[in-house]
Amino acid sequence: MTAVYLDYNATAPIRPEAAEAAACALAIGGNPSSVHAAGRLARAAVEKAREQVAGLVGVKPGSVTFTSGGTEANALAIESAIAAGAKRPLVSMTDHVSVLATAAAAGFWTEAWPVTGDGLADLDWLEQRLKSWKAEDGAPFAALSLANNETGVIQPVAQAAALLHAAGGWLHVDAVQAVGKVAVNFADTGADTMSLSSHKLGGPQGAGALVAGTRATLSRRLHGGGQERGRRAGTENVSGIAGFGAAAEASLRDLPLAADQAAWRDAVQTRLAQDAEVEVFGAGVARLPGVLCFGCEDFDAERQVMALDLDGVMVSAGAACSSGKMAPSQVLIAMGFTPLANSAIRVSGGWASTEADWTRFADVWLAAHGRHQRRRSAA
Amino acid sequence: MTAVYLDYNATAPIRPEAAEAAACALAIGGNPSSVHAAGRLARAAVEKAREQVAGLVGVKPGSVTFTSGGTEANALAIESAIAAGAKRPLVSMTDHVSVLATAAAAGFWTEAWPVTGDGLADLDWLEQRLKSWKAEDGAPFAALSLANNETGVIQPVAQAAALLHAAGGWLHVDAVQAVGKVAVNFADTGADTMSLSSHKLGGPQGAGALVAGTRATLSRRLHGGGQERGRRAGTENVSGIAGFGAAAEASLRDLPLAADQAAWRDAVQTRLAQDAEVEVFGAGVARLPGVLCFGCEDFDAERQVMALDLDGVMVSAGAACSSGKMAPSQVLIAMGFTPLANSAIRVSGGWASTEADWTRFADVWLAAHGRHQRRRSAA
Repeated sequence: MTAVYLDYNATAPIRPEAAEAAACALAIGGNPSSVHAAGRLARAAVEKAREQVAGLVGVKPGSVTFTSGGTEANALAIESAIAAGAKRPLVSMTDHVSVLATAAAAGFWTEAWPVTGDGLADLDWLEQRLKSWKAEDGAPFAALSLANNETGVIQPVAQAAALLHAAGGWLHVDAVQAVGKVAVNFADTGADTMSLSSHKLGGPQGAGALVAGTRATLSRRLHGGGQERGRRAGTENVSGIAGFGAAAEASLRDLPLAADQAAWRDAVQTRLAQDAEVEVFGAGVARLPGVLCFGCEDFDAERQVMALDLDGVMVSAGAACSSGKMAPSQVLIAMGFTPLANSAIRVSGGWASTEADWTRFADVWLAAHGRHQRRRSAA
Repeated sequence: MTAVYLDYNATAPIRPEAAEAAACALAIGGNPSSVHAAGRLARAAVEKAREQVAGLVGVKPGSVTFTSGGTEANALAIESAIAAGAKRPLVSMTDHVSVLATAAAAGFWTEAWPVTGDGLADLDWLEQRLKSWKAEDGAPFAALSLANNETGVIQPVAQAAALLHAAGGWLHVDAVQAVGKVAVNFADTGADTMSLSSHKLGGPQGAGALVAGTRATLSRRLHGGGQERGRRAGTENVSGIAGFGAAAEASLRDLPLAADQAAWRDAVQTRLAQDAEVEVFGAGVARLPGVLCFGCEDFDAERQVMALDLDGVMVSAGAACSSGKMAPSQVLIAMGFTPLANSAIRVSGGWASTEADWTRFADVWLAAHGRHQRRRSAA
């Protein structure tokens, strides 16, 4: 029995192009800041990757600042906005914990921007909130994920950006889960800053990027050398960045294949709903193609994940961002799904997932659910 | 003609054990925070590396916090010390620019701890300074590199730690250049925190660590997930960390070979001094085995580096930490070598360097120097 991996939103398996690019870059053995031959090769690897990453979201390479990952990219954006005058960050309840925690740690009173029952950030709330904006709130700033990491729900970022910009504000878009899975054009989103992560699209872990438009001024948060045009000190992760670049290019090429993931996901969703009482989160709105997040009353998420794992099927209960954490999902609670959030699991496929993977997940889940039902009836 | 790489202090070539470990970890394709099989494999790779890195400096694995590199490790230490009450950081003039810049960026008046002409941090100055310490200076904190990145001069960290501890203070030791090249035992150094970097000892770029003793309390600077026991949020760079661990283990095994590097370096140093007017920086004190930093009046460093590079020999002019920067070295200026600092080059070998590499460097440098002398005589 082959293992089935459907936890791409935690980490996507490495793409072969990315593994090769990372290995080649590792073999260079030079520092991009060195002026000699090995240094120039390392520099070229970083700059090639910058072009590839820029190409994925349709910006010029100079707009891309490499970081150690999505968390650092979010921190760079939020801390830069605060340095530029933001005093009351608005953070959507559909945002990643790194966005919420960074804003909270900055010492300001962060405001929670609510979501609807579908998991969409509430634009009416934002519009009203900006109307009542006061000078002491500082420069308007809000963070909104392009797609939620648990439900896959795609957010109305362009509309949010328009509201922010009309108020003279800055919208930060965490696009970590969306980029490489749906087409993303930085300008079209209206984002002022946008976070990307290598390992969510088939590149190595430990590399990410912040894309910044002309309205955003970045403040460095790592001091020392002049790397990344002075925006981020520290020797570049040449291997990770090269792998990120290759994965970005491959993701762009593979975008048309995402429709298959959506079709297989939809088929599984229909089948589960026929045979069990499941609530699919965000089913009524646009979602990432390979993401299925659902709950089933009284069927504990942790129990589901373990049962599936024993049968070689890997999925997640909530966001896999916090070591050993099994707390119920904040976004599902914000969507009004308490206590169902305790039974929510996330199934997420991607570039290497097959129809057979999705079918096997459904087979194994329905079998586990059947056993659970029988145990409950017997009890 | 094979290229000769003697710029290990910028980046060491990747060790085969590290490349293999990094590639294996890349192939896992799981997130260490995931509880399923792939997640557990990724977690195991990180924890194995933590044991290997801890073993290199003789601490328990729990003392090691992985970061994205030496710069972030220095920032984590310095910002933690400031959060713990340091208000007047003392930074040695032999420290890396990331230490100086981080302390300066924290908004306090940083004090420069001078070095002697040999490049040793002045312990008498430290002793006197601590005697005049005032309550408004906050908790005493000083940073001192274990070895300077340009001269390779090994610093009296244990004595400095004793002075700091007698005053109730915290010593941060940037051991990035020293670890893996000389034996380092964390407890023996007296350090409260110690920075390490993977790529300086033959691991991948983009991974580093902060080792912390029981006297130091770390404050997280990346917020979000609960990784690294809550000390550093963000998905771990599993591949980079695995490579770092393998490089650490190999470095520990290879420590006895460092004597060869020292002998070859000394032979070159003697030969250069016989045939040219060179000033070897730190020649009178203990240095890292494979590091030779010297100046030659009126022979511009940049010109030397380019001449050597054309002949396939790669060395550095000053620290290679700042993109395209060719400013004279701050540590050499602090040692009193103005204007000789403008002609200083750094030759640094390591695990794969051979006697032939060192000999070829000397041949090529002496030839370039001869041409330079003839041009000057003709002018």
